[in-house]
Amino acid sequence: MDKKNIEEGSALNIDFEKRGGLIPAVVQDMRNGLILMLAYVNQEALAETLESGMATFWSTSRNELWTKGKTSGDYLKIKKIFVDCDQDALVYVVEPQGKGACHTKDPESGDSRLSCFYRLVDMESKKQLAHIKDIDKSGS
Amino acid sequence: MDKKNIEEGSALNIDFEKRGGLIPAVVQDMRNGLILMLAYVNQEALAETLESGMATFWSTSRNELWTKGKTSGDYLKIKKIFVDCDQDALVYVVEPQGKGACHTKDPESGDSRLSCFYRLVDMESKKQLAHIKDIDKSGS
Repeated sequence: MDKKNIEEGSALNIDFEKRGGLIPAVVQDMRNGLILMLAYVNQEALAETLESGMATFWSTSRNELWTKGKTSGDYLKIKKIFVDCDQDALVYVVEPQGKGACHTKDPESGDSRLSCFYRLVDMESKKQLAHIKDIDKSGS
Repeated sequence: MDKKNIEEGSALNIDFEKRGGLIPAVVQDMRNGLILMLAYVNQEALAETLESGMATFWSTSRNELWTKGKTSGDYLKIKKIFVDCDQDALVYVVEPQGKGACHTKDPESGDSRLSCFYRLVDMESKKQLAHIKDIDKSGS
């Protein structure tokens, strides 16, 4: 398919091959726009997501189909799926069904963290990370 | 570095190797949380981003360092950088300096599209895409 059709057309033609079979899917919370996680999707994972309505990925560590929440209960219900200009990246807009999207736990509550992006680069040192929680506490 | 330190620590230790030298960076608009684009970053691109304060990537098509806006003027000024749990994905929170982040143009205005994610998967057919603009027009 030519560039013009990929970019301006109305046919879903994800370019999995361009990225070696796996493309990134960004997961965004429908409630507030928060970016919850980023994982990878192959053709099978996208088909399963569209079929089941629950965010499904290809686990690059376990090399298997991975429906988020299947073990934790933290399912991510699909509301919308956006496709980018060159059809090699996705945004899953979701309604979280559990406590959060991250496999890590908040040390205080013991619950799954809502987002995997809970740390910020310190732009002064450019070497350190600040935990969002600590920033929130300091009121800055 | 062990898993616990990568996930809970305060040292920036991006795991470029795990992803073959390139990790995805999601670009989010600071003004409204809109996801603008997704591109890839290697160690050099991240260093340049931190140094210049402008979103910089590694172009996987041209195989070169790519500061967004250098040719179009559509620079993306960095406000915050989030790092995920296993330190192999980034979120650049930016203030767009131009019309948009996409290399494609809106056919009506001729300007760069604000976001690369201007099409949605039609959840009925699962094969077609809807242009956001058309959805907006129909009022749904």
